[in-house]
Amino acid sequence: MDYPNLKDLKRENNNYINLNPLQTAGKLTEPAKKALIEFGDGYSICDFCNGVLDEIEKPPIKTFTKDILPKFLGCDTVRITNGAREGMFLIMHALTNPKDTILIDDNAHYSCILAAERCKLNIIKVPNSKCPIDAIDVTQYEPYIKKHKPKLIFLTYPEGNYGNLPDAKKLGTIAKKHNIPYAINCAYSIGRMPVNMKELGADFVVASGHKSMSASGPIGLIGINKKYEEKVLERSKDYPNKVIECLGCTSRGATIATLMASFPEVEQRVKNWDNELKKAQWFAHELEKLNFILIGQNPHRHDLMYFKTDILYEISKKHKRKGYFLYRELKKRGIIGIKPGHTKSFKLSTYSIPKEDLKKVISAFKEIIDDNKKLL
Amino acid sequence: MDYPNLKDLKRENNNYINLNPLQTAGKLTEPAKKALIEFGDGYSICDFCNGVLDEIEKPPIKTFTKDILPKFLGCDTVRITNGAREGMFLIMHALTNPKDTILIDDNAHYSCILAAERCKLNIIKVPNSKCPIDAIDVTQYEPYIKKHKPKLIFLTYPEGNYGNLPDAKKLGTIAKKHNIPYAINCAYSIGRMPVNMKELGADFVVASGHKSMSASGPIGLIGINKKYEEKVLERSKDYPNKVIECLGCTSRGATIATLMASFPEVEQRVKNWDNELKKAQWFAHELEKLNFILIGQNPHRHDLMYFKTDILYEISKKHKRKGYFLYRELKKRGIIGIKPGHTKSFKLSTYSIPKEDLKKVISAFKEIIDDNKKLL
Repeated sequence: MDYPNLKDLKRENNNYINLNPLQTAGKLTEPAKKALIEFGDGYSICDFCNGVLDEIEKPPIKTFTKDILPKFLGCDTVRITNGAREGMFLIMHALTNPKDTILIDDNAHYSCILAAERCKLNIIKVPNSKCPIDAIDVTQYEPYIKKHKPKLIFLTYPEGNYGNLPDAKKLGTIAKKHNIPYAINCAYSIGRMPVNMKELGADFVVASGHKSMSASGPIGLIGINKKYEEKVLERSKDYPNKVIECLGCTSRGATIATLMASFPEVEQRVKNWDNELKKAQWFAHELEKLNFILIGQNPHRHDLMYFKTDILYEISKKHKRKGYFLYRELKKRGIIGIKPGHTKSFKLSTYSIPKEDLKKVISAFKEIIDDNKKLL
Repeated sequence: MDYPNLKDLKRENNNYINLNPLQTAGKLTEPAKKALIEFGDGYSICDFCNGVLDEIEKPPIKTFTKDILPKFLGCDTVRITNGAREGMFLIMHALTNPKDTILIDDNAHYSCILAAERCKLNIIKVPNSKCPIDAIDVTQYEPYIKKHKPKLIFLTYPEGNYGNLPDAKKLGTIAKKHNIPYAINCAYSIGRMPVNMKELGADFVVASGHKSMSASGPIGLIGINKKYEEKVLERSKDYPNKVIECLGCTSRGATIATLMASFPEVEQRVKNWDNELKKAQWFAHELEKLNFILIGQNPHRHDLMYFKTDILYEISKKHKRKGYFLYRELKKRGIIGIKPGHTKSFKLSTYSIPKEDLKKVISAFKEIIDDNKKLL
């Protein structure tokens, strides 16, 4: 059979300035690159396993999951999952039955909706404030709670389109008042910025290792309030040391080794969040000078930002490459991460990108507009 | 906070002769090691994605999953999962409702039982033939089918304790006769030996990348008969290009890159299965000369073998290190993979281990017995 060249797979994009919000906080640290090679083989972490992933002491998964991560997240218990979506599904599946009602914010990631569909739940969406802010006002949850009596409420903190940070803490108070389990999807926050489950009043937090913790995916985790631990982590009847919802073990290889190896740097960068945020705000301000409009909270409180860019759209209408001109022009200048074809609006992230590189991005936008002024 | 040294994680066992059946067919190929580094970063494979994992052309995931793998497996459709257990759960979850009955062979991996428990199914186990063969006689399924009218039947091919290969093809005929969907857990066969879903008369096959396809885990796949494709791969109402049971995308990083990079070598080694099997049979015969008793089919038809080793157990009773003497003595000789503490019986695998290394293993057992003869 004729193959594409599977033996020599190359990633074209390794040396570009990458603005893709999916990827900016998922780049491996140097220790994680080493761990990836060291634990690359299938079931490598099982050399000294006695049957339970979280109990493995070599490498130190036990200390990492039982001591380090719960302290980092302000929660009682942590379990490793194959990613944030798998974590959301796990929580929903453990706490609900088909046809139960669940509240999800209208800005939720598609995978949160799919997780609920997979559980055959009745999904009620809490609306956002509509353009130009598109934020979630969490007080909107309360009338929905009263009306629909949901089994579980989910909030996305922040969501992956506009990077808006809703008032998760206030929703914690509301959830407590109505005694409803409250889960926060922190795929874009845990590993980037400080998140403390107990301080937010949540019962669950969900994180993504490959999205925001510089781990090689797929990997994620859930933080759990002890109130729900027994139910969510129910053991198998036949195999009493195995958690049913985890199907026994989840991360069976290099992924957890990279999550651990990156953790010390991740913890440090979370402490540096204020500076990261200042850089994002400075960048947004520079783009506003080009008449790009920041959709969402302003001043912005996250590195993920969404811009409406009428001027680029006007150029695209007359450019011979149509909507693809922007992608091509940016790439020529060593910049990627904005989706091919997008000119009307797009999202990007400044996370962990040095200010010098962001200056190159700003200059690139300026140049691209100047070079195409004749088309306006 | 005081950490263990997370930044410099080492795997102690990389340079030993490793007999662990979990690991012998999961060692990365050289191309996979390169792919692992190239695609290590989170969401690395999403550079040129338009929203669906199986449609990505750079790297060539589309050709790999839509053309290459279905031909390799003799099935209509393939979907990537996060592992074999996740694949089994996916099939059960898509095809059954809570309280439905399912037949599973008594030799099934624990994760198959957990997948069924997670679906809240009524699990009926088809018994094995008991010691010393412990094999599944698939004709036993028929009376259970008639009595329990299951929604789905599962067979493990081979199972992970004794490496017995049941007559999967005969069960295909039985399943067809009763028109019941039939799934085979091939975590220990696909990637090691030839498996053709259609020839076996199955509707689903489940494979493990990290166990038997030299991929970095967690990753697996399912092969699907088109008869069940629509039901199993149902799309989201709100996101019509996303498969609900996959939660959209599954392998969101390096794992699939390693699966692809190893594939050409995996395909070759499967063609070489006869030689691999001869080597396993020769090895078993050599151990039988030491009075180790092969439990299971004999002559054996798989590289995973289980031995009853009374002589080692007798030594352990008087040895100052008790049951741990064997692990320690083997390790001293550069051999690992038999569980610490096991002396009465143990399983091992010869897969992809050079004959020269297996000769060292045989000599090691001989030496260990000779050195401890005084204890007998």
